[in-house]
Amino acid sequence: MKIAVDAMGGDFAPAAIVEGAVQALKACEDIEKLFLVGDKDAVEKELARCKCTDERIEIRHASEVVGMGEHPAAAVRHKRDSSINRATDLVKNGEADAVFAAGSTGAAVTSSVLKMRTLPGIRRPGIAVVLPAPKKPFILIDGGATPDCSPEILVQFAVMGTAYAQQVLGVEDPSVGLMSVGSEDTKGNGLGKETFSLLEAAPIRFYGNVEGTDLFESRVDVVVCDGFTGNVILKTSEGLAHAVGQWMKGEVTKNPWRMLGTLLLAGALKAIKKKTSNKTYGGAPLLGVNGICIIGHGSSDATAAKNGILQAVRAVKSNLNDHILSGIGAISEQAQEKARAISAAQAAQAAANAAAEAVRVAQA
Amino acid sequence: MKIAVDAMGGDFAPAAIVEGAVQALKACEDIEKLFLVGDKDAVEKELARCKCTDERIEIRHASEVVGMGEHPAAAVRHKRDSSINRATDLVKNGEADAVFAAGSTGAAVTSSVLKMRTLPGIRRPGIAVVLPAPKKPFILIDGGATPDCSPEILVQFAVMGTAYAQQVLGVEDPSVGLMSVGSEDTKGNGLGKETFSLLEAAPIRFYGNVEGTDLFESRVDVVVCDGFTGNVILKTSEGLAHAVGQWMKGEVTKNPWRMLGTLLLAGALKAIKKKTSNKTYGGAPLLGVNGICIIGHGSSDATAAKNGILQAVRAVKSNLNDHILSGIGAISEQAQEKARAISAAQAAQAAANAAAEAVRVAQA
Repeated sequence: MKIAVDAMGGDFAPAAIVEGAVQALKACEDIEKLFLVGDKDAVEKELARCKCTDERIEIRHASEVVGMGEHPAAAVRHKRDSSINRATDLVKNGEADAVFAAGSTGAAVTSSVLKMRTLPGIRRPGIAVVLPAPKKPFILIDGGATPDCSPEILVQFAVMGTAYAQQVLGVEDPSVGLMSVGSEDTKGNGLGKETFSLLEAAPIRFYGNVEGTDLFESRVDVVVCDGFTGNVILKTSEGLAHAVGQWMKGEVTKNPWRMLGTLLLAGALKAIKKKTSNKTYGGAPLLGVNGICIIGHGSSDATAAKNGILQAVRAVKSNLNDHILSGIGAISEQAQEKARAISAAQAAQAAANAAAEAVRVAQA
Repeated sequence: MKIAVDAMGGDFAPAAIVEGAVQALKACEDIEKLFLVGDKDAVEKELARCKCTDERIEIRHASEVVGMGEHPAAAVRHKRDSSINRATDLVKNGEADAVFAAGSTGAAVTSSVLKMRTLPGIRRPGIAVVLPAPKKPFILIDGGATPDCSPEILVQFAVMGTAYAQQVLGVEDPSVGLMSVGSEDTKGNGLGKETFSLLEAAPIRFYGNVEGTDLFESRVDVVVCDGFTGNVILKTSEGLAHAVGQWMKGEVTKNPWRMLGTLLLAGALKAIKKKTSNKTYGGAPLLGVNGICIIGHGSSDATAAKNGILQAVRAVKSNLNDHILSGIGAISEQAQEKARAISAAQAAQAAANAAAEAVRVAQA
């Protein structure tokens, strides 16, 4: 198979990305061709540094890069010759089967949707992030591709997350939980309450609501939420883990006994760090686009890039998108009817609310 | 002043709550009267156990209790003689200045709004939770009272959170951040994007967007978000902290050296546990209701109950609600105009979307 890699994306690009690509090639014979997309000179320099002469590598020059601070949609539209656009182009044109990109997540999402389009029947894509937990890892979808979701979109996330858990992670009969603020179906926001009964009727193993307190208890294999909530969960977890580290640092340096204790625990802390590292998977797939797109963390190093590329290989090999399509197709007519009815009722309610709000605003 | 306490709320009620109330009375002369609301026999038994004969205590019998698993709105409406209803009644009738309740958060919110009503001009109440962070604590509002919010409601949360930070926590000129998924004003969900410019015009010190990764960096004193997102943040943090503990436990018991290391770090871990304990404040105020309501964690012990009651005292003493009202009044006419215009535009857009969705659904 053929993989396209945005060589310019991420805090340590192109060095870390090129190095990771070279490692992935060494580890995987299934890759027939690996496109390194980006500034030709810079990529060649990094390849020389890695002493890599693998003939499966082909450099595709791109003169621009979308930065982390840029507005993703605008940048993707204006920087036509950016590395992310040129990389997704390769999938669009059929030259590559998958793309790995570790730069701006927003740019990767926008560019993928723009070039590859979504799979037939899919309303919006979702990022499926594998999160570590003491018992076993679980998948959170959406990690941030679609901040505002409808019940229908969340049901599609549930189906896509199930396919991903089965095909790529090897979970036999994945269970799905709906992110909420209480275990009862009456808890949550308006979106969640409407989605609950749709998930009950969907071709998945629906567990019910899950809350933040049991998120890391691994009660389910897949947790479904809108992209805003998912991104807040991911970043809050990252921020809290960092804060705990800060607290520890402040306390353990207070006296020599504590410093000795820290020394004795160095192995344990290292083991936990490894278990919870986002390098293990190296990236999260953008599910629902017509092609495979694996999005890496902005801080990806060579190991993360390698693992992200290998994940792209697994996704292609497992025919992930065929399974997603058959899952979407299996949403029974009845469930689809129900989804439509709820969407219609929701639309009518929204119209009524909007009218009432307009009246209230006009009167104020 | 006079404080009403729901003696039956929480996992360790009535024992822990009654004990906490007795401790609060010992610590605070400002309390003229403390109502213990709940089963008379059970409360008397606990008072006897505490050997308390403080004459400021008055027991008010309530024959029912709203359980944690019950649907809050339905239970509050049906169980008219529940301890939470009888406690909020005391504030409604002017017999008490504030209420402390540690049971079902939903029941406390519903009962408070039902009995006390919201302050004039306030659309919906918000729970202001003080969260610990390495540098300094910060306030998150809303922690779960109002899962679905409009931009106008979020602006009111910002004003209420500012008043609370100033009056009760003593922060001189609190800064306010809007919870989002990126620092730029173009990032976030639809709600956040519309709220951003309203917050710029509001009578608060607006910092801009904050993300989960910098949540615990204490860049701002007050973080504003809808109650669904806030509750997810609180519970995910709780869940992750527990998971980290599980990981540690699994690793440190692997060999005797690590166990020794843990022993040497016992003091450090205890210090961190104390710093991050939700007992420090003992509860979070439900801001925006016409009276003071402090909501305790379901797991409140006597110390938490005591601190929650003392927080109610501070809120009453500082005339918190007068400051909230003057803050809401200070939302300049211009800002209110803008808020209304945006709400109108939002309503019109919602109506258009609803119509389009209805058409799509009808065609499907």
